[in-house]
Amino acid sequence: MNLPAHHPLVDGGTAASPLIRAYRGDRPETTPVWFMRQAGRSLPEYRALRVGMAMLDACLDPELSSEITLQPVRRHGVDAAIFFSDIVVPLRLAGVDVDIVPGRGPVLGTTIRTARDVAALRPLDPAALSPIAEGVARTVAELGSTPLIGFAGAPFTLAAYLVEGGPSKDHLRARTLMHSDPAAWDALLGWAADVTGAFLRAQVLAGASAVQLFDSWVGSLSVVDYESRVSQFSAQAIAHVKDLGVPVVHFGVGTGELLRSMHAIGADVMGVDDRIPLDEASRRLGAEVPLQGNINPAFLAAPWPVLERHVLDVIERGRAASAHVLNLGHGVPPETDPGVLTRIVELAHA
Amino acid sequence: MNLPAHHPLVDGGTAASPLIRAYRGDRPETTPVWFMRQAGRSLPEYRALRVGMAMLDACLDPELSSEITLQPVRRHGVDAAIFFSDIVVPLRLAGVDVDIVPGRGPVLGTTIRTARDVAALRPLDPAALSPIAEGVARTVAELGSTPLIGFAGAPFTLAAYLVEGGPSKDHLRARTLMHSDPAAWDALLGWAADVTGAFLRAQVLAGASAVQLFDSWVGSLSVVDYESRVSQFSAQAIAHVKDLGVPVVHFGVGTGELLRSMHAIGADVMGVDDRIPLDEASRRLGAEVPLQGNINPAFLAAPWPVLERHVLDVIERGRAASAHVLNLGHGVPPETDPGVLTRIVELAHA
Repeated sequence: MNLPAHHPLVDGGTAASPLIRAYRGDRPETTPVWFMRQAGRSLPEYRALRVGMAMLDACLDPELSSEITLQPVRRHGVDAAIFFSDIVVPLRLAGVDVDIVPGRGPVLGTTIRTARDVAALRPLDPAALSPIAEGVARTVAELGSTPLIGFAGAPFTLAAYLVEGGPSKDHLRARTLMHSDPAAWDALLGWAADVTGAFLRAQVLAGASAVQLFDSWVGSLSVVDYESRVSQFSAQAIAHVKDLGVPVVHFGVGTGELLRSMHAIGADVMGVDDRIPLDEASRRLGAEVPLQGNINPAFLAAPWPVLERHVLDVIERGRAASAHVLNLGHGVPPETDPGVLTRIVELAHA
Repeated sequence: MNLPAHHPLVDGGTAASPLIRAYRGDRPETTPVWFMRQAGRSLPEYRALRVGMAMLDACLDPELSSEITLQPVRRHGVDAAIFFSDIVVPLRLAGVDVDIVPGRGPVLGTTIRTARDVAALRPLDPAALSPIAEGVARTVAELGSTPLIGFAGAPFTLAAYLVEGGPSKDHLRARTLMHSDPAAWDALLGWAADVTGAFLRAQVLAGASAVQLFDSWVGSLSVVDYESRVSQFSAQAIAHVKDLGVPVVHFGVGTGELLRSMHAIGADVMGVDDRIPLDEASRRLGAEVPLQGNINPAFLAAPWPVLERHVLDVIERGRAASAHVLNLGHGVPPETDPGVLTRIVELAHA
């Protein structure tokens, strides 16, 4: 590990936390739990902070990003914080004209669809990452022995936004570029890998004890397209933090068919969405791979006995793997009653 | 078969067509081919006809729906027509306030989210189906021995629109209703099954020689949710045409994990999207199940040699199944060069 001496994983006690132990394949006394998108719109204290403040401005304000990151830890008693950010933040820091439009998502001023468009992309100036490093440093100073997870999007998902110009249903323009101009595609994903890798590295050096790489949209790909035209760039992104020795979690939606290939990029832990049960995921990956997931968000509004039975079933199936971190199979829906999340944490810790 | 004596499958020659032979498990001399969404925005003659005409109005005008259905058969020489319609047409005919907004998709005037909302839905008056029957009758009169495929959406996909009030990324509100109010969910899917089943039956009685049930969004479900809360209603929809003895094709996006369960509802042929290769789909389903698919639409803009190699690979992998109908793994993208589709037909027939 090439971590700074003052890093929480070295001298801050996070190495002994249930989360990091589970990420390293151990079984702590209680099942660690956190929730993807736990920091965000489900929390009234978050909505209050965000009034009049654009999403990307919040991500780039160290005081705010830190406070938002800490809110769900205080409220729910989860076993980890995840740094509040957005997949497109490193794109913005690299000079891409992108904004997040409420109710729609990231929208780009221009699309990247040709070799010339790709060639015009500039590398990320490391100095631009200082608000991120500062936000992380403020956060870990408060967290003590609760680990912070660093956050970044994977190259394919970033490329999907860059090519489509915004959210899309099937990312077809991106997938088309992959086959119609493979050289431009490779250049684009290589650029995205280095940008998002630098974003991850800054978070780890500033104090994150683990990282999660989100390839949100990669479930739209076949295994052959993923392995031939995408996975090497995810590995390239991960390579930016490999020497730091923090656990790497990897996750995407609808990736039951891709789990093994996604693990092979250098991930330590696989996040599993709610489409396949954890015991089946473990069968596909091998029992030695720690799993994270996969409460179905569609149960969050169900009567508690129905939800409780589902959560216990997820925990039970998670025993098929060497280690298990409880989470949702997708992000917390904005309309979720936060009290329900707290109750799930209590159940996991009981 | 309880088909009328003048039905194309009885005395119109479609029974001997390559498409129907393949759907019944046979291997005709050349691979039959058609394209999902072959009638539609990729064709300039379609765009010309639709100027100033709302989508649902076009679907409910027998002369127009017939003409639009015939356009791709004339242009590409495909082995089948598929009746031009929309998944929400039977909802409109049953009195649901729904419209199709260009660039967005179906949008409902009110959402269906409670038992009371579901109870207020009315059954479909069979008389409302006359523009559909007339459109089909006009079409088959022109088609001769080329079969027409009837078209309908499956109950889950219809329910997703009804609950969400429009297109959505993950259909979470629908999936939430499934678990928070199972009785209302069952009533909603039962209603949708009968509405879409009646819509299919009208098309077959008027001359369709096969049907395809589209469960477009069902790939968002786990196998357990699908089998416990959805599949019985898809079977109920199919039951409306079972006595007519026409081949039933079933298709959904991202359904590699669900293929066996979807086939079990009473489907004869499984459509496969582009995420898994046909030989793998055949391994999951058993070689006796005829397959349809699965050219990756992301290749349609690639240089012809790249696309040609991909199409030949799809045909080769399709040999794993007893029978194969070539198609895309998803609908024709609107920006597709129609000349490319014609070239694929020529390649399949060569």
